[in-house]
Amino acid sequence: MFKKKKDNCRDIFRNFSGEIVPEIDVFIKEFFEKKISAADSEFMKEILEMVGDYCLRDGKRIRPLLLLNSYYGYRKGFKKRKEMIKLGGVVELMHSLLLIQDDIIDKSELRRGGKALHILLGDKYSHLTLNPLIGQDIASVAADILFSCCIEIISGTDIRHDVKDRFLEIFSKTYEKTAWGQILDSLNSMPKTIDPESNAPMQISLMKTAYYTMVYPLIMGYVLSGEKNKNEMINIEAFAVPLGIAFQVRDDLLGVFGVEKDTGKPNDSDIMEGKLTLLVQNTILKLSESDRVRFTNIFLNCEKSRDDIEFVRSCIKESGALDETIQRHRELIDESYNLLDDLVMKRFNKDIMRGVIESVEDIPL
Amino acid sequence: MFKKKKDNCRDIFRNFSGEIVPEIDVFIKEFFEKKISAADSEFMKEILEMVGDYCLRDGKRIRPLLLLNSYYGYRKGFKKRKEMIKLGGVVELMHSLLLIQDDIIDKSELRRGGKALHILLGDKYSHLTLNPLIGQDIASVAADILFSCCIEIISGTDIRHDVKDRFLEIFSKTYEKTAWGQILDSLNSMPKTIDPESNAPMQISLMKTAYYTMVYPLIMGYVLSGEKNKNEMINIEAFAVPLGIAFQVRDDLLGVFGVEKDTGKPNDSDIMEGKLTLLVQNTILKLSESDRVRFTNIFLNCEKSRDDIEFVRSCIKESGALDETIQRHRELIDESYNLLDDLVMKRFNKDIMRGVIESVEDIPL
Repeated sequence: MFKKKKDNCRDIFRNFSGEIVPEIDVFIKEFFEKKISAADSEFMKEILEMVGDYCLRDGKRIRPLLLLNSYYGYRKGFKKRKEMIKLGGVVELMHSLLLIQDDIIDKSELRRGGKALHILLGDKYSHLTLNPLIGQDIASVAADILFSCCIEIISGTDIRHDVKDRFLEIFSKTYEKTAWGQILDSLNSMPKTIDPESNAPMQISLMKTAYYTMVYPLIMGYVLSGEKNKNEMINIEAFAVPLGIAFQVRDDLLGVFGVEKDTGKPNDSDIMEGKLTLLVQNTILKLSESDRVRFTNIFLNCEKSRDDIEFVRSCIKESGALDETIQRHRELIDESYNLLDDLVMKRFNKDIMRGVIESVEDIPL
Repeated sequence: MFKKKKDNCRDIFRNFSGEIVPEIDVFIKEFFEKKISAADSEFMKEILEMVGDYCLRDGKRIRPLLLLNSYYGYRKGFKKRKEMIKLGGVVELMHSLLLIQDDIIDKSELRRGGKALHILLGDKYSHLTLNPLIGQDIASVAADILFSCCIEIISGTDIRHDVKDRFLEIFSKTYEKTAWGQILDSLNSMPKTIDPESNAPMQISLMKTAYYTMVYPLIMGYVLSGEKNKNEMINIEAFAVPLGIAFQVRDDLLGVFGVEKDTGKPNDSDIMEGKLTLLVQNTILKLSESDRVRFTNIFLNCEKSRDDIEFVRSCIKESGALDETIQRHRELIDESYNLLDDLVMKRFNKDIMRGVIESVEDIPL
C-alpha cells in the first residue's frame, strides 16, 4: 500500500480547511445578519444573535469539509462553489441543531468553549417567567428554527433540480439516522442493566457518528457533483464506515484516558454518566464473572467516587480491553487507508482524505 | 354582500373534507407502513408505529384541506392530485410534530383523545433506564424525525421544480413563524408581571394560529397551483389573517366558557395555566385600578381555587370584555366574508371557504 508522507497530506488537509472554513463561516455569519435585520421583533433579533454566535463557535467543521472535498473530488465540468459553500453551511447548521438538542437531553452546561444554548437562554429570559425550564423550552424550538433555516437555504440554492431532490433525500436520511442513533443512545443511557452482548454500542456509533460525520457528508458531496454511480456510493460507504467507527473509538478512548488540556473536555464525564461505549462493553466481556458484577454495579451507579472512577479505569486497562481497543482502532485506520484506494476520487482530494484519516489516527493518550 | 345559504356551504365543505381527509390519512398510513417495514431495528419499528398512530388520531385536518382547496381553487390546466395529497400529508405531519413539542413544553398529558406522545413513550421505555425524562427525550427527537419525513416526502414529489423551490420556501417560513410564536408564547407563560398594553397576545395569535393555520396553508396551495401573482398572495393573506384571529378568539372563548363535552377539553385549563389570551388582556384593560390588581394577582398565581376560577370568569363577564370579544369575533368573521369576495379563487372553492368561515363563526357557548 502506497502511503503519502504524513506531514504532506496533513498539510494539504490543513490548507484546504484554512481555505474553506472561513468561507463557510462568512456564509453563516451573513445568513444570520440578514435574518436579524429582517426580524420584526426584538426577542427574535436577540435569539437569532445568540443562535448565530453559537453556530459560529470554534469547531473543526469536519462535515462541511468532507462535503466540499467530496464534491471537488468527483466534480466534472460544472462549478458551483458559492452554492456548495451554502450547502456546507446547511450541514453545519444541522450539526449545531443536534448539539443544542444533545445538550438539553444530556443536561450538559458547556459546549465548544461556552455555555450550552439552553443555559444562555435561561440566563437571559428567566426573569420574565416562573417557568424554571424556560431556557430549554426556547432552545428546543430554536434548534428547530435551524432545521427550517436549512430548508430555506436549500430552497434558494441554484443547482440542478434532480441533484437538489437527491440532496434533499440524503439530507433527510442524515437527520433521521442520526436521530435514531440519539434515541438508541437515550434508551441505553443510565440503563438499569447491561447486556454485554448488546449490539447497541456499535449501532449508536454507526448511526450517531459514522454515518452522520463521515458517510453522509461524503455522499452529499458526491451527489452534488452530479455523479450517480451506485457502485461508487457503495465504495464511499465502505470506506467511511470504518473511518467513522475509528473516530468514535478514538473519542471513547480520549473520554476516559485523554488529557483535558488537549481534548478540551474532562476525562471522567463518560464514566460518570455511565456511557456504554464499545470500550466499556469490551471491558465487561473480558472480565471474570465476579469482577463483572462488581464493575457493572459501580458503573451503573449514578453517584461515583474518585476511587470508583479509578476502579473503572483500571478494569479497562487490566482486562486487556484498552490494548485491544487501541489495536482495533489501528485496524480500522488501516482499513480506511486501504479502502480509500478503491475510490475514483481525484488524487488531490484523496490526499485530503488521507489528511483526515491521519487526524483520526493520532490518539494523544 | 351576497352570502350563500349556510347549510349549503357547510355541506360543500363537509363533502370536500369527506373526500380529501381519507386520502390524506391513507397516504400517512402507507408512508408509515413503508417506513416500518424498511426499519432494521425493533425499537425503530415500535416508535414509528406509535408516531404513525399519533399522526392518524382524529382531527379536522384543516391545514391539508385548505392547501388542497386553494390548489384546486387556482389551478389552471395541470392535475397533480396524488402529489397534492402527499404535500397535504406533509402539512399534517408538521402539525403533529408541533403538537408533540407543544405537549412537552406545556407538560400536557392528553392530546386528541389519547395520551401525549411523550407520556406513551415514557410508559413504554422507562423500565429500561433510570432517566425519569426518557419519554420526553425520545419524543422531542421523534418530533424531529417527522420534520425529516416532511423533507423526504417533498424530495420525492413529482411537481415542477420552480414550484417545489417556492413550496420549500413557504414550508420553512411556516415552521419558522410558528416557532417564533411558540417562543413568544413561552416567554409570556407563567409571567411574573403582566403588561396590559403588550402586543404579545396579538402577536402569538397571529404567528401560532393565523399564519400557521390559515394564511400559509392557503398560500402553499396557491403556490402549488403554479400561479404567482403577488397581488393575489397579498389578498389571500388579507383574507386569512382575520379568519385566523377569529379562529383563535373562538378558541379563547371556548377555553373559558365552552362546554367540555362539545369542545373535548376542560374549560378551566386556560385559566389555570394563566394563559394571557386576547380575552384576558381585554378584561385587564377594562377593570378599575383596584380590580385589576386583584385580578392580576389571582390570575398569575399558579395555584387557583374553584373560587379563583369563578372570580376570573366573572371579571371577564362583568367587565364587558366577554361581550366585546364576541362582538370582535363577529366583526372578524364579517371581514373574512367580505375579503373572500376579493379573491379570484374559483366559485366552488370559495363556497368551500365559506363553509370554513361558518365553522369558525359558530361558538357553542
